[in-house]
Amino acid sequence: MSSTKGRVTIPTDLDVIPQTLELMEKWGADAVRDCDGTDFPRELQNVDGKIYSTYYTTRKDNGWAKAHPEEIQQMYVMTPFYMSETDVLRIPLMKGLYPDMLKPNSRDDITRWWEVIDRTTGQIVSTEKWSYEESTGEVTVLSIPFHDYTVSFLAYIIWDPVHMYNAVTNGWKDVEHQITFDVRQPKTHEFTMKRLRKFIEEHPYVNVLRFTTFFHQFTLIFDELAREKYVDWYGYSASVSPYILEQFERECGYKFRPEYIIDQGYYNGQYRIPTREFRDFQAFQRREVSKIAREMVDITHECGKEAMMFLGDHWIGTEPFLEEFASIGLDAVVGSVGNGSTLRLISDIEGVKYTEGRLLPYFFPDTFCEGGDPVKEAKVNWVTARRAILRKPIDRIGYGGYLKLALDFPEFVDYVESVCEEFRVLYENVKGCVPYCVKKVAVLNCWGKMRAWGCHMVHHALYQKQNYSYAGVIEALSGAPFDVSFISFEDIKKDPFILNDIDVLLNVGGADTAHTGGEWWCDEAIVTAVKKFVYEGGGVIGVGEPSGHQANGRFFQLASVFGVEEERGFTLGYDKYNWDSHDHFITEDCKGEIDFGEGQKNIYALEGTRILVEKEKEVQLAVNEFGKGRAVYISGLPYSFENSRMLYRSILWSAHEEGNLYRWFSSNFNAEVHAYPANGKFCVVNNTYEPQETIVYKGNGESFSLSLKENEIHWYQI
Amino acid sequence: MSSTKGRVTIPTDLDVIPQTLELMEKWGADAVRDCDGTDFPRELQNVDGKIYSTYYTTRKDNGWAKAHPEEIQQMYVMTPFYMSETDVLRIPLMKGLYPDMLKPNSRDDITRWWEVIDRTTGQIVSTEKWSYEESTGEVTVLSIPFHDYTVSFLAYIIWDPVHMYNAVTNGWKDVEHQITFDVRQPKTHEFTMKRLRKFIEEHPYVNVLRFTTFFHQFTLIFDELAREKYVDWYGYSASVSPYILEQFERECGYKFRPEYIIDQGYYNGQYRIPTREFRDFQAFQRREVSKIAREMVDITHECGKEAMMFLGDHWIGTEPFLEEFASIGLDAVVGSVGNGSTLRLISDIEGVKYTEGRLLPYFFPDTFCEGGDPVKEAKVNWVTARRAILRKPIDRIGYGGYLKLALDFPEFVDYVESVCEEFRVLYENVKGCVPYCVKKVAVLNCWGKMRAWGCHMVHHALYQKQNYSYAGVIEALSGAPFDVSFISFEDIKKDPFILNDIDVLLNVGGADTAHTGGEWWCDEAIVTAVKKFVYEGGGVIGVGEPSGHQANGRFFQLASVFGVEEERGFTLGYDKYNWDSHDHFITEDCKGEIDFGEGQKNIYALEGTRILVEKEKEVQLAVNEFGKGRAVYISGLPYSFENSRMLYRSILWSAHEEGNLYRWFSSNFNAEVHAYPANGKFCVVNNTYEPQETIVYKGNGESFSLSLKENEIHWYQI
Repeated sequence: MSSTKGRVTIPTDLDVIPQTLELMEKWGADAVRDCDGTDFPRELQNVDGKIYSTYYTTRKDNGWAKAHPEEIQQMYVMTPFYMSETDVLRIPLMKGLYPDMLKPNSRDDITRWWEVIDRTTGQIVSTEKWSYEESTGEVTVLSIPFHDYTVSFLAYIIWDPVHMYNAVTNGWKDVEHQITFDVRQPKTHEFTMKRLRKFIEEHPYVNVLRFTTFFHQFTLIFDELAREKYVDWYGYSASVSPYILEQFERECGYKFRPEYIIDQGYYNGQYRIPTREFRDFQAFQRREVSKIAREMVDITHECGKEAMMFLGDHWIGTEPFLEEFASIGLDAVVGSVGNGSTLRLISDIEGVKYTEGRLLPYFFPDTFCEGGDPVKEAKVNWVTARRAILRKPIDRIGYGGYLKLALDFPEFVDYVESVCEEFRVLYENVKGCVPYCVKKVAVLNCWGKMRAWGCHMVHHALYQKQNYSYAGVIEALSGAPFDVSFISFEDIKKDPFILNDIDVLLNVGGADTAHTGGEWWCDEAIVTAVKKFVYEGGGVIGVGEPSGHQANGRFFQLASVFGVEEERGFTLGYDKYNWDSHDHFITEDCKGEIDFGEGQKNIYALEGTRILVEKEKEVQLAVNEFGKGRAVYISGLPYSFENSRMLYRSILWSAHEEGNLYRWFSSNFNAEVHAYPANGKFCVVNNTYEPQETIVYKGNGESFSLSLKENEIHWYQI
Repeated sequence: MSSTKGRVTIPTDLDVIPQTLELMEKWGADAVRDCDGTDFPRELQNVDGKIYSTYYTTRKDNGWAKAHPEEIQQMYVMTPFYMSETDVLRIPLMKGLYPDMLKPNSRDDITRWWEVIDRTTGQIVSTEKWSYEESTGEVTVLSIPFHDYTVSFLAYIIWDPVHMYNAVTNGWKDVEHQITFDVRQPKTHEFTMKRLRKFIEEHPYVNVLRFTTFFHQFTLIFDELAREKYVDWYGYSASVSPYILEQFERECGYKFRPEYIIDQGYYNGQYRIPTREFRDFQAFQRREVSKIAREMVDITHECGKEAMMFLGDHWIGTEPFLEEFASIGLDAVVGSVGNGSTLRLISDIEGVKYTEGRLLPYFFPDTFCEGGDPVKEAKVNWVTARRAILRKPIDRIGYGGYLKLALDFPEFVDYVESVCEEFRVLYENVKGCVPYCVKKVAVLNCWGKMRAWGCHMVHHALYQKQNYSYAGVIEALSGAPFDVSFISFEDIKKDPFILNDIDVLLNVGGADTAHTGGEWWCDEAIVTAVKKFVYEGGGVIGVGEPSGHQANGRFFQLASVFGVEEERGFTLGYDKYNWDSHDHFITEDCKGEIDFGEGQKNIYALEGTRILVEKEKEVQLAVNEFGKGRAVYISGLPYSFENSRMLYRSILWSAHEEGNLYRWFSSNFNAEVHAYPANGKFCVVNNTYEPQETIVYKGNGESFSLSLKENEIHWYQI
């Protein structure tokens, strides 16, 4: 039995009633919840704790959906490229798509809402030149031989993608496909508000309505074999309908084009430099989603319940770091925690009373099966997230899935008990306090605050070979003693003084992406502001292809600042004599060869730049003094404790703070020190699964030796 | 003593008179030459053979140059980028340049011929906002803080770059710096023609004037430490003067801008997609250079001498594969042979009576010194070049440098004897005959014929990490049994039927370079012609980032043809299921892991594409059927016998000719078979320095086993 209690939520189901009560006791849980596919047992309605109920705003009422097919949610889909062999081309819309999930919307005026594009020229094909045949599902285009064509069309989402995902993943048989209806449209809007009131009335024992989520699913499509075909956790493609788009046209004062959403088939993914029209659309959606979400929250409050939002699934339009979010009036946000970055996606949210992190693993049969190792997964998840919790804690933790599955793993049940205990102690020590921050750093990209902590994610915490070397920087920052902000090029454009408040600027990612900025660097105001910032003493760190965009005799638009440039053939005629590597403050803790992950090819140093690491005549790490400022170039930085330390040192060096390294510092980079001056506490935490020895430096520079057990966290009074 | 005689040229000097005669005998040489820094001995004037004399059109008369300083040659130079800290910026023109080589030309109107550019905005700074101070050598600019500026200026070439290079390399002390004068300008033009006549009169024993070369040096600049700073063997920067540029303006009908040559500091290097203005300028230069070169050749002929051009040094404007060249009326071209590609730079020249290859090593002290291994260098050079000679022979070979140095290496002297013998036998067997060609292949890039065989070179055969994986393709082709042509995008634009005559098209290089074409792929006529060509049965091979240019939803504009695409973040949301590798005809001879050199990151296969090699989820080699045609994608192909074979098989497969593999074929890829049906001969050649066993297949498919000694060549009657 747990010695402390609270701050923990557990799932339940009809088949685990006594066990739920036992586990609540053992884990000190003070809240119980249902899940997609479970029911809340009547016997637990008077349990000693809060009761959460998932609430599906847009599904679980096929009767309504079928009665109002015109208000079923829609998404924009682009067909693959089809090359025309002759002067007529037939394009089957649904090829490559799961037929039970989507249905082309030919109810509305397809000449207005669909678009056929000649992708060889980029031109729209005029509507007289194509037609759609309902019976075959094909669009016939009068085409030019050897040109490529695509059709952008609206489709009804006749099986909710998350419901489909859960059904496929859990092997549910014979479930009725839940259709998603569109709360933004008039009839469903009215119905929804009544439905919510009714739900609350019918579930009087529920304390917290956990909205899963509001109105629009992030982009998620399945192929003919029910395999995931396309996913973008930040995608807006499924938040459209003629009704909504007409409203957009009225508000923004210009005509909508499907291409604003389709974006050549790239669907405005994370890496695309967002167009003005897409940004307008996002802002419009945020305003409208917030407005209607607010209505639902008001009803919830009116009925005496708390409103909690799940940060996921149908969360599009609620970007929690932007100002519209606070206007929704939510009590809480809960989200899934995959690592430090996703933890901070939740814990950094302002304007709610509390935040809650759903820890991994979910009690799903993929992990809780023979051969599965849920303890290991839980350990990795907790230790990874804990770094970030120590910087900015969530207020509660919890688990999801089918409790019955977890019960078969007693070791797991014990481990979770220890996590719950540890979390409560941690929370007591940390709460309400801004931890000691060494420096203010800002990540500069095209998204800024809107995609804080998530800027390199495609599907939440999923690994991608192409971005782990960039995501590693964000992960390292999520648990590092810095005051981290995320700013966009537009922010600088609006207010160049925004940089005055920053010590070190980071630009991380591949060239010509939203993460490094692409053509934004050709904006005189931007590039001049950043150069001035560094020249006058600021620090800047570039990872990968920072400021990469070919223009005006440079590929790295900040080449003179970073002191490095990428060889794309254009400067092969120039002899390069600067190849010697040097020892440096930044690499003092590096053991052996540094892991730059995917790294970056063809980087060379300009004259005067100090190379720290070079491999086969390709610079991996270099530093440069630019005016009074300092720049660090890193080719890639996958997340590891060693790399995290290297980034830490890079930030200190670029901010001219190398003299203050030994303040709240662990000599061994496998351990970290966090201080909470206002609470008079500090802790030392072992981030590894082995014991560690370290020397701990306090804020005044005093030090002591410490042995830490695996994963151990040690609390001290300052 | 050699059993055959002829087709060989050797250098001589005052200090090796008897030895020259001995070596002529031993090597069967029938021509003797002088070199830069040597004199032709009076005692050899009646030697039994032709006498070549170097003739320096643009230098070795400082008296004239000094008397006519306004007609000293000039070049455009761009300063590095200088960032302005305040509203005044001072830019020292000569910083980073060797002071004895260049001198800013402020004699002409600098407001017309110089340009100050704000490289932050790309805008020209108006001439009222800057001034040049002769005494300090600085340009003062009224500038915008934190903007970058460059000055493009004309400078006199007061030390000929090749003379400087020879002086520095050979450690010449106290030599007078030879100034280059400009034959294109009126007074020097007139003087030059008289000077040529005078030279011929004064050297009656000379049979062949070896022009070294005509008028304009390729771009070559040295830094303050006399180290090479910038080199482009194809560079046009040193072919300018106000006199010439005014003529250009009159002919082309638009105003000249220094930026046409400066090109943001990239100087229109090999990798830059050439602008219309630069192409106009090149064409103008070719016309004008040919005209005046023709005058000199005419005088030479009038005086009863032969005119030979050295393909190098001041060769700019004489691109030998373009039509103006033939109008010069030369008897011969001689050039340095670094490998197979540079051999074909010479041997493929049409419109001359004979071609001659200067084999390596030069008799210079860098190789002919203690610890040097000239035999090894000679062997590698000969065996590498021989492959190409067997496809398209040069008519003569020769050596250059200081004979005295070679004499100290008797093993070298013996090896050269064997090379000379082997060359003469080869030439007899091959001469006047088109060797058997399996297929017609064309390399498609922005330069086409103009840079045939040299398309990936920066400085002749010099290795570059960034291009050896591309240059390997050209090197493999230089000795392969294909009819190879080089075509440009403009060629296709002018005549799409040009593709009808081709079996397999190659596009080789990095994205957005002149070698793959960049935005040319957005030209509807180009992309449609190429797709049609493949779709109707043609073959296409892409290496690196073929057709790479971000536009219209694709990075590889031929993604659907090659069946592969590059992941630049924009398609990370799409799930990719095609990762299995397959055996294939193309890889049947590959032993173990294939060497893709620098390779290419982030390539993935589209649905239906057949992957042959994939490494860590990056496609290295793949094939795709496109209509009736076939495409092969290769990530990189450094030159090796194994890779050469892989390319050979790729070409055959893409041309649907895999059934005819065993025709004039060696089972062992270290040996090659070349057939000369018209002469009734074929040979088998061992390209390695070890013995080889192979099965040789004749044209009718009959085969026999063969053992070859190291480097051996075996001749047979068909």
